[in-house]
Amino acid sequence: VEILENKPRILLLHRHLEGLVPILAHHFTVLFAWVPEHLEKSFDVRALVVAGEVPLDRDLVMALPSLGLIACASTGYDGIDRDWVRSRGLLLTSARMVNDQDVADHAIGCMIMHYRGLQTGDRLVRNGKWADAPSIVNRSLRSVRVGIVGMGEIGRSVAQKATALGMAVRWWGPNPKEVAWERASSLLELAATSDSLVVTARSDATNGGLISSKVIDVLGRTGQLVNVARGALVDEDAVISALKAGRLAAAALDVFREEPTSGERWQDVSRVLLTPHIAGRTQEALVRIGEQLRANLLAFFGDKPLLTPV
Amino acid sequence: VEILENKPRILLLHRHLEGLVPILAHHFTVLFAWVPEHLEKSFDVRALVVAGEVPLDRDLVMALPSLGLIACASTGYDGIDRDWVRSRGLLLTSARMVNDQDVADHAIGCMIMHYRGLQTGDRLVRNGKWADAPSIVNRSLRSVRVGIVGMGEIGRSVAQKATALGMAVRWWGPNPKEVAWERASSLLELAATSDSLVVTARSDATNGGLISSKVIDVLGRTGQLVNVARGALVDEDAVISALKAGRLAAAALDVFREEPTSGERWQDVSRVLLTPHIAGRTQEALVRIGEQLRANLLAFFGDKPLLTPV
Repeated sequence: VEILENKPRILLLHRHLEGLVPILAHHFTVLFAWVPEHLEKSFDVRALVVAGEVPLDRDLVMALPSLGLIACASTGYDGIDRDWVRSRGLLLTSARMVNDQDVADHAIGCMIMHYRGLQTGDRLVRNGKWADAPSIVNRSLRSVRVGIVGMGEIGRSVAQKATALGMAVRWWGPNPKEVAWERASSLLELAATSDSLVVTARSDATNGGLISSKVIDVLGRTGQLVNVARGALVDEDAVISALKAGRLAAAALDVFREEPTSGERWQDVSRVLLTPHIAGRTQEALVRIGEQLRANLLAFFGDKPLLTPV
Repeated sequence: VEILENKPRILLLHRHLEGLVPILAHHFTVLFAWVPEHLEKSFDVRALVVAGEVPLDRDLVMALPSLGLIACASTGYDGIDRDWVRSRGLLLTSARMVNDQDVADHAIGCMIMHYRGLQTGDRLVRNGKWADAPSIVNRSLRSVRVGIVGMGEIGRSVAQKATALGMAVRWWGPNPKEVAWERASSLLELAATSDSLVVTARSDATNGGLISSKVIDVLGRTGQLVNVARGALVDEDAVISALKAGRLAAAALDVFREEPTSGERWQDVSRVLLTPHIAGRTQEALVRIGEQLRANLLAFFGDKPLLTPV
């Protein structure tokens, strides 16, 4: 890497963030932590760009004595201990309002796929089993009750879109909020009265395994679980058991306990749509994330207030 | 079949309409044309229930001297020659406003699946290729331009839902209509300026192969074709060639030139979602269709005006 001395240097920690380079390269020299020669030249970088869901590599952070800012390319920052970051005198930013609508669209798509039998239909036609079409669960969206867990930006966006498509929406979260949709008295009550339970909550130290085997059991044999939030929120083993035993009708998971999740883990599990944490990673969101990151980095290097500090 | 003389007898022509029986059985003795003993007893039935998309069996109709009504369980009646039916002195009804929203939801689902890479994502995760996720076309719905061919009940419903999800909507049909969306100057112009072309038009003798190889070519290598109307409207061979050659990005077909379409025909065709004509066949629509059919049949047998005459 050719380091131009007139551009501040920033270090990108994860390879899957490489798509941000075109947006950042005009103002910054972007170094890649996964390239040894880059890492050697990173000793005195002042800003680190990370994916907030990945556990932060503290050794690396401590090996960067000039570091002043950790900028998350994601909305969530569950991989980062805020207190520890603060105790090291570091600033922290995360993405805000960049992809909530995209994540919501993904959840809506997972519900339509399930209730309209799109994947099943495709399999039947390709296998010459057109005549089995009546076996498809083909249900009007307007009869589907959606329960949303977490009423943040993504939860509200799912609620708006589901409402526009005629679905009945309720929600639950630990705190009441001023929104148009009714809050259930408890998560269990919400699961028991929902056809699709859509998890959009922020993941933190207090809510690991929130979607427990008990929640899955009351969601029940006609229920669908959709997780577009974080794998840690869901008891994934319980989901797999419930799907295998027919105690849960279907699931759509974009996030997993471990990412990447292994293909083998899901080999014998049907009625589950698996996507590689892509719900929020649209081309357009990537541009917005990059622009917001760039603005935060320019503010940091220009000693101005950060746009989206945590 | 036990024929109770106090109930009018009706003849069901196609096996896939069997789901209507529970709704009709209270008022009518329902005979099945595919059961020889039923057919024998059908000599003097006065009403025939058919799927309007299937070419009408004229020999059968002519063998029923007491016949007065042909009632379609479908909205479309492209399998029926209205003039011929009229010339035999028969009345004709079809379904109306029973499943336009369901068909539209199906089309919306096909677009989300494509632009958010749901099927591709699932395949990658299951094959242990999570790292290839950046290869997925992952695009915000709000950047997608939808072109709707035909602005009837289904077209309007697709337009409303797509608009609610932030997509840009234009349309084309042979006649201007008073709707909120702009009509393109021609079908070719619409295809050239759309990302997804959604076919919702009524099929008739004038518009066979409307979606020609030329239309497919201008829709182009980033375009998606969605057909939830009738197979006859689309040059299916041209779609297959374009998909194979990469001149069309994707297709989602719920209807086919021949139904059932054979699995072999699509064996080497990827990037196409195939469903067995299920877009409008939800549990809820089936109930509405059955109730409307029953109302038409009761009106006919009671010498009252038909609800939805053609």
